[in-house]
Amino acid sequence: MKALVYNGPRDVNVLEVPDAKIERSTDVLVKITTTNICGSDLHMYEGRTDVEKGKILGHENMGVVIEVGQAVDRIKVGDRVCLPFNIGCGFCKNCERGLTGFCLTVNPGTAGGAYGFAGMGPYSGGQAEYLRVPYGDFNCLRLPPDAEEKENDYVMLSDIFPTGYHATELAGVKAGDTVAIYGAGPVGLMAAYSARLKGASKIMVVDTHKDRLALAEKIGAIAIDNGEGTAVEQILEHTKGKGADRGCECVGYQCCDHHNHEVPNLTMNSLVSSVGATGTIGVVGVFLAKDPGAKDALAKQGQIAFDFGKFWMKGQKMATGQANVKAYNRNLRDLIAADIAKPSFIISHELPLSKAKDAYKNFDAREAGWTKVVLKP
Amino acid sequence: MKALVYNGPRDVNVLEVPDAKIERSTDVLVKITTTNICGSDLHMYEGRTDVEKGKILGHENMGVVIEVGQAVDRIKVGDRVCLPFNIGCGFCKNCERGLTGFCLTVNPGTAGGAYGFAGMGPYSGGQAEYLRVPYGDFNCLRLPPDAEEKENDYVMLSDIFPTGYHATELAGVKAGDTVAIYGAGPVGLMAAYSARLKGASKIMVVDTHKDRLALAEKIGAIAIDNGEGTAVEQILEHTKGKGADRGCECVGYQCCDHHNHEVPNLTMNSLVSSVGATGTIGVVGVFLAKDPGAKDALAKQGQIAFDFGKFWMKGQKMATGQANVKAYNRNLRDLIAADIAKPSFIISHELPLSKAKDAYKNFDAREAGWTKVVLKP
Amino acid sequence: MKALVYNGPRDVNVLEVPDAKIERSTDVLVKITTTNICGSDLHMYEGRTDVEKGKILGHENMGVVIEVGQAVDRIKVGDRVCLPFNIGCGFCKNCERGLTGFCLTVNPGTAGGAYGFAGMGPYSGGQAEYLRVPYGDFNCLRLPPDAEEKENDYVMLSDIFPTGYHATELAGVKAGDTVAIYGAGPVGLMAAYSARLKGASKIMVVDTHKDRLALAEKIGAIAIDNGEGTAVEQILEHTKGKGADRGCECVGYQCCDHHNHEVPNLTMNSLVSSVGATGTIGVVGVFLAKDPGAKDALAKQGQIAFDFGKFWMKGQKMATGQANVKAYNRNLRDLIAADIAKPSFIISHELPLSKAKDAYKNFDAREAGWTKVVLKP
Amino acid sequence: MKALVYNGPRDVNVLEVPDAKIERSTDVLVKITTTNICGSDLHMYEGRTDVEKGKILGHENMGVVIEVGQAVDRIKVGDRVCLPFNIGCGFCKNCERGLTGFCLTVNPGTAGGAYGFAGMGPYSGGQAEYLRVPYGDFNCLRLPPDAEEKENDYVMLSDIFPTGYHATELAGVKAGDTVAIYGAGPVGLMAAYSARLKGASKIMVVDTHKDRLALAEKIGAIAIDNGEGTAVEQILEHTKGKGADRGCECVGYQCCDHHNHEVPNLTMNSLVSSVGATGTIGVVGVFLAKDPGAKDALAKQGQIAFDFGKFWMKGQKMATGQANVKAYNRNLRDLIAADIAKPSFIISHELPLSKAKDAYKNFDAREAGWTKVVLKP
Repeated sequence: MKALVYNGPRDVNVLEVPDAKIERSTDVLVKITTTNICGSDLHMYEGRTDVEKGKILGHENMGVVIEVGQAVDRIKVGDRVCLPFNIGCGFCKNCERGLTGFCLTVNPGTAGGAYGFAGMGPYSGGQAEYLRVPYGDFNCLRLPPDAEEKENDYVMLSDIFPTGYHATELAGVKAGDTVAIYGAGPVGLMAAYSARLKGASKIMVVDTHKDRLALAEKIGAIAIDNGEGTAVEQILEHTKGKGADRGCECVGYQCCDHHNHEVPNLTMNSLVSSVGATGTIGVVGVFLAKDPGAKDALAKQGQIAFDFGKFWMKGQKMATGQANVKAYNRNLRDLIAADIAKPSFIISHELPLSKAKDAYKNFDAREAGWTKVVLKP
Repeated sequence: MKALVYNGPRDVNVLEVPDAKIERSTDVLVKITTTNICGSDLHMYEGRTDVEKGKILGHENMGVVIEVGQAVDRIKVGDRVCLPFNIGCGFCKNCERGLTGFCLTVNPGTAGGAYGFAGMGPYSGGQAEYLRVPYGDFNCLRLPPDAEEKENDYVMLSDIFPTGYHATELAGVKAGDTVAIYGAGPVGLMAAYSARLKGASKIMVVDTHKDRLALAEKIGAIAIDNGEGTAVEQILEHTKGKGADRGCECVGYQCCDHHNHEVPNLTMNSLVSSVGATGTIGVVGVFLAKDPGAKDALAKQGQIAFDFGKFWMKGQKMATGQANVKAYNRNLRDLIAADIAKPSFIISHELPLSKAKDAYKNFDAREAGWTKVVLKP
Repeated sequence: MKALVYNGPRDVNVLEVPDAKIERSTDVLVKITTTNICGSDLHMYEGRTDVEKGKILGHENMGVVIEVGQAVDRIKVGDRVCLPFNIGCGFCKNCERGLTGFCLTVNPGTAGGAYGFAGMGPYSGGQAEYLRVPYGDFNCLRLPPDAEEKENDYVMLSDIFPTGYHATELAGVKAGDTVAIYGAGPVGLMAAYSARLKGASKIMVVDTHKDRLALAEKIGAIAIDNGEGTAVEQILEHTKGKGADRGCECVGYQCCDHHNHEVPNLTMNSLVSSVGATGTIGVVGVFLAKDPGAKDALAKQGQIAFDFGKFWMKGQKMATGQANVKAYNRNLRDLIAADIAKPSFIISHELPLSKAKDAYKNFDAREAGWTKVVLKP
Repeated sequence: MKALVYNGPRDVNVLEVPDAKIERSTDVLVKITTTNICGSDLHMYEGRTDVEKGKILGHENMGVVIEVGQAVDRIKVGDRVCLPFNIGCGFCKNCERGLTGFCLTVNPGTAGGAYGFAGMGPYSGGQAEYLRVPYGDFNCLRLPPDAEEKENDYVMLSDIFPTGYHATELAGVKAGDTVAIYGAGPVGLMAAYSARLKGASKIMVVDTHKDRLALAEKIGAIAIDNGEGTAVEQILEHTKGKGADRGCECVGYQCCDHHNHEVPNLTMNSLVSSVGATGTIGVVGVFLAKDPGAKDALAKQGQIAFDFGKFWMKGQKMATGQANVKAYNRNLRDLIAADIAKPSFIISHELPLSKAKDAYKNFDAREAGWTKVVLKP
C-alpha cells in the first residue's frame, strides 16, 4: 500500500510499503478515506523528536472497516468509523475510568499510545491506504449514515475537535463564563468553537497570525492580536480588570513571542495573568519532558520559569494532558449529525495522499492560509 | 488590652494597646480564649514580608462573643465561636460560591483578607485579649456545648485543620487512594489526618525532622525520611513504581533540601515525580508573587523552574491556594463533636499570651519538639 | 402605593396600600420597573394554596434602588437590580453553599423564603410600586448599563430563566446530550433555551398547546405534540429506542393528560419511560406536600403513584426543587449583556400594573397566546 | 462439576452438571474458591422472579484462573481474581463511562447482565466448581499476594462491599456528614462501614433485627431500632430536628413494617422524612418494574405511593440502581490489602458447597444470626 513515511528531519515521502493487516484477534482493519496532518506531526517532521526512520505518520484517521479479527463483537465489515488518535485497551485502570489517553497497556512503560507518533508505541499511522486498529471494539467510533457526506466534519473527531473540547473541559468552561484562549491554530479554534457550543459569554482568542484570528472572529470569538505583545492587557480590559474565568493553552512548548522567538513560558505565564483569581487553566498544547533541541537552558530539561507565586496567590487550578478522545467523541459526533457543529470550517486544503510531501512542507512553513490539511488516500 | 505586636524582623512583643471594639453594625466582638501561632506568622516574624510595624498578629482565633453590632442576626452574646482565618463578606461573587478565601470585598484590590496578616487588609490579629470580627453573621462558626472542654481541638478549625483538609480536597483524595504529602509540619500532619479520615489506603508523609515524622506515623501514615534526598524513590517503591494517586504540597516557598538549603522548586518537582499519570496535586503551602529576600534569582520574581513537560506528559492536574475555611469548618467541627477527630494531638506547647515573645523565638528556631503553640490570653 | 392584592380565590385587585419601606439596616428599597406574573402565581389565584388574604403577590421583580439601610455596603442608590424570587440570608448552612432556595433563616421552620408567596414567609411581593428587599447586599443582582434597554430580558433573571436553567443543571445536561422536556410553558421553554445554550444535540419539548410548541420550535427544539398521548413513543423514536440522556419536568402537580384531566403522576412516569438507563431527571415543576384541593386520593396526601421499579432498574437519578437563582443569575446576566441570550422572546403581553387583574384572569384561563405577562408599575 | 441449581420456588440442589468452559476467545475460566449467597438470591429462591429452572445461581464469586481464551491479554493462568457480579463488555457507551452495571452488550434488550440471575442474561452462576467469565480482561479484578489469607474479605468485593459503598456514593456521603441508612442486612452494614471509612460524623442504621443492629453498633454506627415504627422520630432527634445530610436505602421492594408486613413505600417515604432539605438519597435495595407476587396493587405494577410533594419541597435528590462494581473494587481491594477495611466481619456462616441447599433454607427463614453465608466449593 501507499503510505507517508518519515525518513529524517524535513524528509517525508509517500512510498510503497507492506499492507497493514489484522495481527491479533481483537484488531480491526480500516481502509482510510480521510487522514489529516496535525500540528504535532510537524514536531516530528522538524526533527524535534526521536521518532524512528521508516515510521508511517498520521494519527487523525477515518475510514471503512474491511476486516475484523475473530474476537471482535461490535464492529462489522462496512462500518464507517473514526479512530481516536490515542489507542486504548479498554481494561486497564486508566481506560476503565475513561482516561484513554493514558492507557497502561498499549505502550508498556508509558501511560498512553497513539498511531504514528514518537514515543507512543509501535503503531503505524494512517496517512496510508490501510490502518490496523488494535482493540477494535473499544477504539472504533461508528458513524451515522451521513458519514460520507460529512466526511470532513467527522474526521475532526479523531483529534482536534475533542482536543479543543478537552481544553474547555479541563478549564471547566460553563455557560456564561469568559474564556481566554492562547493559540488560534486548529486546536485553539476548536477550543473556541467548543466554548461557543457550551454557551461561554466572551471568548478571547490570542494569536499573531491575522488569517487565524479572522477565523476566530468568524465563529463569534474576540480576536486578540498579540502583534505588540499586549494580549494580557487586552484581556484584562475586556474583563473589567478581573481576568477571564477560564483559560486554555493551545500552543505548547514551541510558543513564540511577537518577535517570533521561542519563549517556552510565554503562554503559561500570560495565562496566569489573563485568568482571574480562583480561575482554571486547561493545557492541551504539547510540552515535552526533555527538549534537547531547545535554545533555552530550562527548556532543554523540560522546565519553564513559571509564575508559581502569582498562580498560588490567585488560587488558580490547572489541568493538563492529551485529550481522552473517547470521553467526548460520541457526543461531538451527535452534534455534527444534528447539524449543530460543523468543525470542517477549519480546513484550508484538501489534497490526495500523493501530495502529502508538499503539504508537510507548506504547512511547516506556516504559510498564510495553511490552517488545516486533510488527505484523501 | 494586651496584644502581640510586630515591631520589625524577629522583634515582637506583648504590649498594651487600645481595646478592639465594634466599628460597624455587622461586626461581632470576641473575647479570645485561645489563639495559635501559625507557621505563616514566621514569614512575617522573619521579615520576609512587608507587614507594617505595629500590626497585631494572630489569625487562628477562638473565643466568646461579648458584643454584637445591631445588624447582626444569627450570633448572640455568649456564643462560643471559632473564626476562620480568612475574612469574607458573604455576598461577593467569590463568597457566594463558597470561595471565601478570595473575598472581593474585604481587601479591595486583592482577592482575600485575613486577621493580622501581611497584605491581607487592615484587620488586627487575635493574639490579643479581644478581636473585632467583621461580618459576624457570616464569619463566626458556632461551637457546641463541649466547646470549653475541647477548646484545643476546636481552635484548629480556624486554619490548620481546614487547610490540611483543603489540601486533600484540592488533590481529590477519596477512599482507597494512595497519597504523597510533602511536609510534616502542622498543615502536612493535618493533611495526613484528613486523608486518613477520608479512607486513603496509603499515606506517605515526607520530611527531614524526625519528631514530626514520628507524629505522622502515630496517625497511621508512612514516614518518608528525606534525610538522604530519596523521597521520590521511596514513594515510587511504596507504589510499585506507579507513583501516588494524589499529592499534597504543605511546605511552601521556603522549602529546603536535605542540606537545609532553600530550593524553591524542590517540593513541586518532587511531587510531579512522586504522583502518577493522571494524578492530582493540591498545593496549600504558601508561595509568593515576589520574594525579594530569596537568594534564588527566579524566586525573587515569584517563579520556580517547574518540570512542566513531565507534568503535562503525565496529564496531571494541580489546584492551589489558601483554604476556604468556611467550606469545611462545619463538617470538621461535627467530627470533633462526635469524637472522631481530635486535631489537638498536634499541640506541643500551651502557653499564656504573655509568653508569646519567647514562643515566637523558639518556634522560629524550629527547635525539636516545637510543633504547634497555642496561646491563652 | 399601588399593589396587586390577593383577596381570595380568583379575586385579586390593584389597591392603594402603605408604601414598602426599609425595616432593617440590611434592607434595600427598590422602585419596581418590571414585575411578571408567574405560572405559580396562578396556584394562589386559583385558591389551591393557603395564602392569606391581603398578600401582595409578585416574585419576579426588577427595579431601581431608591434607598439602602445603613448596614448595606455593596448596593448603592441608583443601581438597577434584578431580585431573585427566593430570599436568602447569605450566612446559613444552605446559603453559604449556594443553596439559596433553601435558606434556613428568612422563613423559620421551613427551608426557603420568597416574595409574595404562600408558605414562603411574611414578605410582600413586587407587583407593586415599591419592594422591600431583605439582606440587600446578598439578594440584589446589579445590572449593566444596558439594563433599561433590555429590561424585558433582565427581568427574566428573577425566576424563569434561572429556573429553566436549573432544570438542565439538575438533569446534568452537557454538550451533545439529548434532552426530553415535559412542559412548554415559560419554564419549559427556558429549559429548552438553556439546553440549547449548553449545546444539547436534540431537545424534545412535550406539550399539547400548539402555540407553545411553536415557540419551542422557534428556538431549535423538536415539538412533541402530546395531543394523542404518544409523547413517550415519539421520544423513543427520536432516540433510536434508547430514551433521552436527560429529562426535565417543567409542569408540576397540576399536570394534565391529553384529555385535560389532572393526572398527577403523568409527567414523572412519562419521564422515567422517556429517559434512558443511567439518565438523570431534573424536576422544577412545583409539587406540593399536601394538596387538599386535588381530586386524586394520593395527590391529597402529596403522593404520586410512581414507577419506582422501572426507575430503579434503569439506574436513573433525579434532582428536584426550586432554583437557587443566585447560583446562575450572574452568568445568565452576562449572556444577555453579550447578546447571546434573549429570554424576552417568551413575552406575549406587556401591560401596566393597573391591568393586572385582567391579566390574571386571562392568563389563568390559559387563553391561546398568553405565554408570559410582564407588568410595568 | 458440582453446582447449585434452581428447580423452582424454595427448591434448589447441588447437582452434577457439565463443566463450565471457555466458549469465546475473550473468556477466562475460573476455579471457584469462595462464593456467597446474596439476599437477592432469595428473591429467586422464593419464586418472586421468572428465573428459569436449571439455572446455576451465584453472583458473588472469587477464585483462581485456570484457563484463558486466546484473545485475553492481561489475565494469566494462576491469577487469583474476584469477579464483579455484573458482567460488562468494556466498550459500549455505558461501560466506557464506568457504568458497568448497565452494559448494553452482554444482555441484549436490557441494560445490564450478571451471573446466575433472573433477567440478567444467559450466564451461569458461580455457586459451582468452575465459572466462565466473559470478557475476562475487563471483568477480572486481580488480587494481591495475601489473597488466600484474606479470601473472606476479598470475596466481598464481588458485590456487597461495592454495593454498600455505592449507596454512599449515590448519596454523596463525605467527611463530617450525618447519614441515615435503612436496612442492617449485609448491604446496609456495608453502607454503614463505607460511610465510616469516608469519615461520616454520625451513622444511623435502621432495622428491627437486634442481631443485625448489634453488628451495626460494632462498627461505630448508632442502632435505630424500628420495632415500634419510630425510626424517623429517632433520626430527627439525633439530628436536632433537621434530618440527616444523606440517606441510603438498603432494603428494597420487600421492605416490611414493624409488624413484618410488606409495605413497599415504607423505606423510601421514611427516608424522605429522615433526610433534611437539599439532602441526597442513594437507593441500592432492589425494586422491580413488575412484581406480580406482591399483595399491594401498586406494587404489582412496580409502583409505590411516593411522598413526591415533600421530596420536591425539600429539594432532595435521589440516585438509584445496582452498583457499578468495577468503579470501586480496585480502591476497596487496596483498603483490604492495607488492613484498613475488613468486610468479612459480616460473615456468620462458612460452609462447603455441598451444604448450600440447607444454607438457602436457613438464610431464607431469616433465622437469627444468619447474616451472611460463604460457600467453599
